[in-house]
Amino acid sequence: MKKNAIVGQSGGPTAVINASLYGVIKEGMAQAEIGRVYGMLNGIEGFMSGNYMDLTGNLTEEELELLKLTPAAYLGSCRYKLPDDLSSPFYPALFEKFRAMDIGYFFYIGGNDSMDTVSKLSRYAAHHGSPIRFIGIPKTIDNDLILTDHTPGYGSAAKYVADTVREIVLDSSVYQQKSVTIIELMGRHAGWLTAASALARKFDGDNPLLIYLPETDFEFERFAEDVKAALNKHNSVIICISEGLSDSQGKFICEYADEVRLDTFGHKMLTGSGKMLENFVRDRFGVKVRSIELNVNQRCSGMLASATDIEESVQAGSEGVKAALKGITGRMVAFHRTGNSPYSMECITVDVNEVCNQEKLFPAQWICGNGTDISPDFLEYAIPLIQGEPQRKMESGRPVYLYRR
Amino acid sequence: MKKNAIVGQSGGPTAVINASLYGVIKEGMAQAEIGRVYGMLNGIEGFMSGNYMDLTGNLTEEELELLKLTPAAYLGSCRYKLPDDLSSPFYPALFEKFRAMDIGYFFYIGGNDSMDTVSKLSRYAAHHGSPIRFIGIPKTIDNDLILTDHTPGYGSAAKYVADTVREIVLDSSVYQQKSVTIIELMGRHAGWLTAASALARKFDGDNPLLIYLPETDFEFERFAEDVKAALNKHNSVIICISEGLSDSQGKFICEYADEVRLDTFGHKMLTGSGKMLENFVRDRFGVKVRSIELNVNQRCSGMLASATDIEESVQAGSEGVKAALKGITGRMVAFHRTGNSPYSMECITVDVNEVCNQEKLFPAQWICGNGTDISPDFLEYAIPLIQGEPQRKMESGRPVYLYRR
Repeated sequence: MKKNAIVGQSGGPTAVINASLYGVIKEGMAQAEIGRVYGMLNGIEGFMSGNYMDLTGNLTEEELELLKLTPAAYLGSCRYKLPDDLSSPFYPALFEKFRAMDIGYFFYIGGNDSMDTVSKLSRYAAHHGSPIRFIGIPKTIDNDLILTDHTPGYGSAAKYVADTVREIVLDSSVYQQKSVTIIELMGRHAGWLTAASALARKFDGDNPLLIYLPETDFEFERFAEDVKAALNKHNSVIICISEGLSDSQGKFICEYADEVRLDTFGHKMLTGSGKMLENFVRDRFGVKVRSIELNVNQRCSGMLASATDIEESVQAGSEGVKAALKGITGRMVAFHRTGNSPYSMECITVDVNEVCNQEKLFPAQWICGNGTDISPDFLEYAIPLIQGEPQRKMESGRPVYLYRR
Repeated sequence: MKKNAIVGQSGGPTAVINASLYGVIKEGMAQAEIGRVYGMLNGIEGFMSGNYMDLTGNLTEEELELLKLTPAAYLGSCRYKLPDDLSSPFYPALFEKFRAMDIGYFFYIGGNDSMDTVSKLSRYAAHHGSPIRFIGIPKTIDNDLILTDHTPGYGSAAKYVADTVREIVLDSSVYQQKSVTIIELMGRHAGWLTAASALARKFDGDNPLLIYLPETDFEFERFAEDVKAALNKHNSVIICISEGLSDSQGKFICEYADEVRLDTFGHKMLTGSGKMLENFVRDRFGVKVRSIELNVNQRCSGMLASATDIEESVQAGSEGVKAALKGITGRMVAFHRTGNSPYSMECITVDVNEVCNQEKLFPAQWICGNGTDISPDFLEYAIPLIQGEPQRKMESGRPVYLYRR
């Protein structure tokens, strides 16, 4: 008997979260057992307020192809934690909505917190004998989900970091004068994205000369020694750091900058880790120094996305649908690497309860140079993930994206 | 009689300054009257210290093609102002170097300050009867040189701004909650790059909703009214501003933030205009607000360069060589737009003395919405300049660039 499917997006946007949505829609529409494919607008939060759309037949083939290459979240997103208490009235209210819409399959594309949603819903369903199948589709640029080789979204973000840091390296190398450039990259606890800056190097001894991840305790004096040694050898020193650097006491580097008041209007402002270290280096060495925060384009740059990442994200969505149809529930699609040269990967499913609220840190054995460098093993791991440029549709010199209005 | 040519790059890097260098090298090597083509390393400053390289025959065809697509300055750059006093011993020392190398043609690729160099050298040459011809090849992302329709480098920077702002617009639109995003773009006095953010819009009323250029006096209270009205209509409000916004007294907005001390180490730091307005909006409206500084990738993003800009930059270099061979000196290559649909352009030369130390501001008649918007006339002007994606050589998923080691 046909049942309908519903899909939602949750958490921070990425360049490829819509590729997974594309995978769910295409596979859902291709399966005879699935009637309509609905999309929750603004995730489970928006859905609870009655916001959803029918995705079946409402998007043309051309629009679907645009969706696949559009960054950010087409359906909108939310950051909404479901009640821990499964006896909360939230759950029967939600399942009543599912019943009214004849939902048989639920897909949630997101990171850690979204997997927590899938975990709770599948446990509630099991306890109350609901036949709805709940599947998580992973998504995060942070690459910090466990039980998967990597996450959809990481490859594109890593490619963005590699390309952009390379361009900054070139930009910084044009003058003869000594200079230090500090690039702050996303990652509060896990250094995966910052490590990707090592992909920007073209030869031994190339910039970035120093790379600091949150997995290593940060020490100002050791940092000063590292910078001094680098400045002795090179005119242009590029340093890549994670936003979440902290010292051995767990105090964030950016917390070393006190909140400061702006006199004219009396506002308070916080300083980032990059700005903090920029001031430290300027004060200590008196050289020209600047800090650059790559900011949200790390996660949402459609133009610099990895074609491999896009294809794998589609696959994650599509395999999620297939798994649900096999009767699987309470699990997340995961990537299992089956080969490295040539690279190959297959989709599996893993217990969503094990994934949620866990964090996969950057492996200690891939950190070298006394906490200032990344080992070649990481490059071998990451290079297959950043391959290929998407072929975009352009109009008047600008990429065409699909958006709701 | 054959004479040698010398070429240098000066000022801030761009995505296409090497395309102009490519144009000079290719055209120089093709002309029978030119012997060798030398490159000054780090501009006139490096050359005075004896740093140059022979570009003739030292780069393979493949390397030259890579050079054309490599951002930043292959020869290195400098910021070096020549003595105003033409009787300074600097000049005979420099011309003696030219004589020793049998230089007949001098090409300098750069912006305002570099044209000042060309002006001084050509005037010195005229005064002392030197037959060396001095030609300026324009380059600046700021688009602020007079007597030229636009500058090489602007199209790529404008394309970067358009694409990147568009991605941020999508990223900012995923949540239901009200939010303000302030994007700070390059431009101390001229708003050309900030205006390019209007190219990010896809429909009437699309973000960015507010655009502020340095050409309009900034008023905090009027700004607050603008933001209030925008927040009443939209959940996500994107505001693009020039770094050089100033009030009617000429005081920069970022100067409203006093220098502040960081307690732990006692360093001072300055705040940018974006950060300043972020704090202003947060304080005034209590909404979620963030500021993003696009930073140096605006000027050096090779991956998002405009193919039109690259080709025109090559042409600027090549036409500079042809002009010199015709006996022209003391002039800058300029772009004269001959058609808009279809777009067409021809290279001319203009008096370098008129160009240097002048600044072409964004036209007042293209600023609308009481200083918060850009008129469609600008879009018509800018769209031809951002056309086309360069076809890059990729290796292991990363672009291959040409660099000196």
